[in-house]
Amino acid sequence: MKTTPARRADRMGARQIYEALRDQIMSLVYGTDGLLPSSRALADEMGVARSTVTVAYEQLAAEGFIETRHGARPRVARAVVQRGRTRVASRPSARRAHLSAFGERLRQDPPRWTEPPRGLVANFRYGELSPSDFPVLAWKKAMAAAVARKPERLAYDNPSGSLRLRTALQGYLWRSRSVRCEVDQIVVVNGSQQGLDICARLLLDAGDRFLMEDPGYQMARHTFAATGAEAVPIPVDADGLETARIGDIEARLAYVTPSHQYPLGAVMPIGRRHQLLAWARKADAYVIEDDYDSEYRYDTKPIPPLHALEGSDNVIYLGTISKTLSPTLRIGYLVVPAGLRSLFAAAKQIMDRHTPLFEQDALAAMLESGTYDRHVRRVRRRNAERQQALLDALRRRFGDRVRIEGTAAGLHVVAWFDHLPHKREDALIRTAHAKGVGIYPVSALFDERSASRGRSRRAVGLVMGYSALEVAQIERGCRLLAQAVDQLD
Amino acid sequence: MKTTPARRADRMGARQIYEALRDQIMSLVYGTDGLLPSSRALADEMGVARSTVTVAYEQLAAEGFIETRHGARPRVARAVVQRGRTRVASRPSARRAHLSAFGERLRQDPPRWTEPPRGLVANFRYGELSPSDFPVLAWKKAMAAAVARKPERLAYDNPSGSLRLRTALQGYLWRSRSVRCEVDQIVVVNGSQQGLDICARLLLDAGDRFLMEDPGYQMARHTFAATGAEAVPIPVDADGLETARIGDIEARLAYVTPSHQYPLGAVMPIGRRHQLLAWARKADAYVIEDDYDSEYRYDTKPIPPLHALEGSDNVIYLGTISKTLSPTLRIGYLVVPAGLRSLFAAAKQIMDRHTPLFEQDALAAMLESGTYDRHVRRVRRRNAERQQALLDALRRRFGDRVRIEGTAAGLHVVAWFDHLPHKREDALIRTAHAKGVGIYPVSALFDERSASRGRSRRAVGLVMGYSALEVAQIERGCRLLAQAVDQLD
Repeated sequence: MKTTPARRADRMGARQIYEALRDQIMSLVYGTDGLLPSSRALADEMGVARSTVTVAYEQLAAEGFIETRHGARPRVARAVVQRGRTRVASRPSARRAHLSAFGERLRQDPPRWTEPPRGLVANFRYGELSPSDFPVLAWKKAMAAAVARKPERLAYDNPSGSLRLRTALQGYLWRSRSVRCEVDQIVVVNGSQQGLDICARLLLDAGDRFLMEDPGYQMARHTFAATGAEAVPIPVDADGLETARIGDIEARLAYVTPSHQYPLGAVMPIGRRHQLLAWARKADAYVIEDDYDSEYRYDTKPIPPLHALEGSDNVIYLGTISKTLSPTLRIGYLVVPAGLRSLFAAAKQIMDRHTPLFEQDALAAMLESGTYDRHVRRVRRRNAERQQALLDALRRRFGDRVRIEGTAAGLHVVAWFDHLPHKREDALIRTAHAKGVGIYPVSALFDERSASRGRSRRAVGLVMGYSALEVAQIERGCRLLAQAVDQLD
Repeated sequence: MKTTPARRADRMGARQIYEALRDQIMSLVYGTDGLLPSSRALADEMGVARSTVTVAYEQLAAEGFIETRHGARPRVARAVVQRGRTRVASRPSARRAHLSAFGERLRQDPPRWTEPPRGLVANFRYGELSPSDFPVLAWKKAMAAAVARKPERLAYDNPSGSLRLRTALQGYLWRSRSVRCEVDQIVVVNGSQQGLDICARLLLDAGDRFLMEDPGYQMARHTFAATGAEAVPIPVDADGLETARIGDIEARLAYVTPSHQYPLGAVMPIGRRHQLLAWARKADAYVIEDDYDSEYRYDTKPIPPLHALEGSDNVIYLGTISKTLSPTLRIGYLVVPAGLRSLFAAAKQIMDRHTPLFEQDALAAMLESGTYDRHVRRVRRRNAERQQALLDALRRRFGDRVRIEGTAAGLHVVAWFDHLPHKREDALIRTAHAKGVGIYPVSALFDERSASRGRSRRAVGLVMGYSALEVAQIERGCRLLAQAVDQLD
């Protein structure tokens, strides 16, 4: 075969190497330790003589970009590291890209992600976990065992997930949630977000409709809406989704959180559950049951999920370890109807072949050994203590001025300040933030076009997550929040 | 808030627990170690008295399903474990699901995944790596450090990937591939498959067209076609994609492997690279440059990727660690045009929020310390040895009857047996397999509708991957393959 290597590297002289390295140093390419490759390694990589690299390095050292020491690899000068940190490179092209319809929708309405604020006294943002709850030793041990064992085979694995993990999850789902399924109905996904996205892609087209709890989980709405389908917001009351309102609505799917409605915290009674399942059968629609925090039940017996009820053939069950181990591990699981299992496997294969194997193996080992169950019991106790601390602190600081919802389960409650009109919400958030307290309004979780938004406008309501905070932080946070409220009154 | 717990667990008697456990045991829920929960733990989970569980356990033990021993957790009986392994549960629903257009396309044309065959003497399947090449100790160390460090923050991270890994990748891309980019043009993805899928979703709609190398990488074609877009197959010769043929074709994107064409192995000369870039500018299309095995160059100097050339604003660069560390880690990266970076971040967030953080951290540490570069140099040497062993063995066994292509780079070559007519291909595969040799035909990688398929029909051509095999296996495999060919002759 003929090859025509461009031999660009051959033409590189010390000057080009110098310039390129300088640019790279200014962009802080050389990691946190600031070490550059040895002249021999760099010469080797670039196919030039070592002396050429040496000349370039000497020039960089003379100009103060790097520090060299005989026998050691050159290092980016400390002053450059400091300066470089502040450099933000940005050079968006003027050209307007031609995108898919999906791409255009995302461009017009992107999901938001912001770097979590640092240095707050207490951040009541929901969804984060306390570092002190992560089972560092157990996970390290499980990962080390997985790495040591796994290289016996280094090939793409089953798209639905490793047989070992799915087998372990099958047992876990049954004993902890009364969910019974075959192993091959389980699809391991990269966190519940990927589970939502697979459902969106397989079940929704532009122009379809889907039912959403209102207020509800924004990322689910966003994910379904990105297909071009339209959200039909259904109000939520103290018993969850108002199923009496959905009787004749035609839609392709409904997204619900019956175990602990997000954000208002309702536990859906059995009557409504049956109504919802009856609607799904009639509408030939799927119900996505997001059991996102089912491990945390404080004052109730286990409630069987929709999936465990009669007539739940249309239910897709979604679980995650983001609330028990860590959201950064990115592991979740779907239980899909038997008729859809190969389709979900095909979609998962197209999307990313399969979830990383070492993690799957590590989680499976923790489930098999009982370590995971013990960990869940431990963090359940700790989060019950945190919730109690939060309720006590709110009561102590606000007395009758606060009304709390959704304490039966989960890792968040909703605190309503009925005496504070909604128009003071932004001011409260700003004032609290200035005092070092991060707070997040319920109002952001309502559908923008929804009639029920009026409801959210009556008073200030906060979604208060507590699982990332220690008891002392919760108490300080509530004290500072009370000061912020007092300043507004 | 009112709650109406169904208290289903309360109504569970020993009989129900017995039946449920028996079913679960027969489905082998209890993992590889076969341990059931202690009676106390199970009673606790189910909200029943411990004595109720004990009665159920006694019945199961009496019937031989489990073995109990005082003070230890019950264990599934060995005989049951053996029987259970053969049970395949399957109960697809008769109901025909209403799917999205994407879902229907996947149902009609699903990607294939088959459990890798076990017990072969030599499996020449491309894409797998040798267990002996995986840096077990280095990865364990890097992961342990990541797990120990990371819990300082357990919150969702940047959708584009951790700043640390992207910074490390920026340096790696520049020093190893002459690819220069800003950190925020890099998007960390779950293997190159997710990179392809993001591009497909953001850039293609049903009815659009995309250029594919023919023969080419099936999963890329599958992924783009799943959007409903149509593949335009462009023939490949000894210099890669025949760019002279694309002048006036209107298409939204082109997928290419210029560094080492998959599967035929051509290295695209600089002239064709410029032609391709000129086409992309004129057509306002994107070029996806899949640099899947660029770390493996044996007889050429580095060739600058398309991305490193002038006028490459439309190039999306795709890289992976699947060929250097492991395909089961699921880490890859895109370098996207500056104007698209926030859009790709938004898509990644919708798809699965971000790639798992511990892995990102571990890989970043290996890149920073130079461990990754050293590992790449080591496996490059080993794979050069494997390639040489394969070429020698083929030459020794087949002499002039074999014609080999694509040896300049990568982890596979193509072996053409010009004297074997294409119609003998299936027979050869079967005969080889019976002898313990896995072989894979080039013909499967041609577009089905392509005129150039005629070319693939002339003779038997095999894509021979060698990176998962040791030298002795390669030699035995070639000897057995020669026997299989002789049986056909």
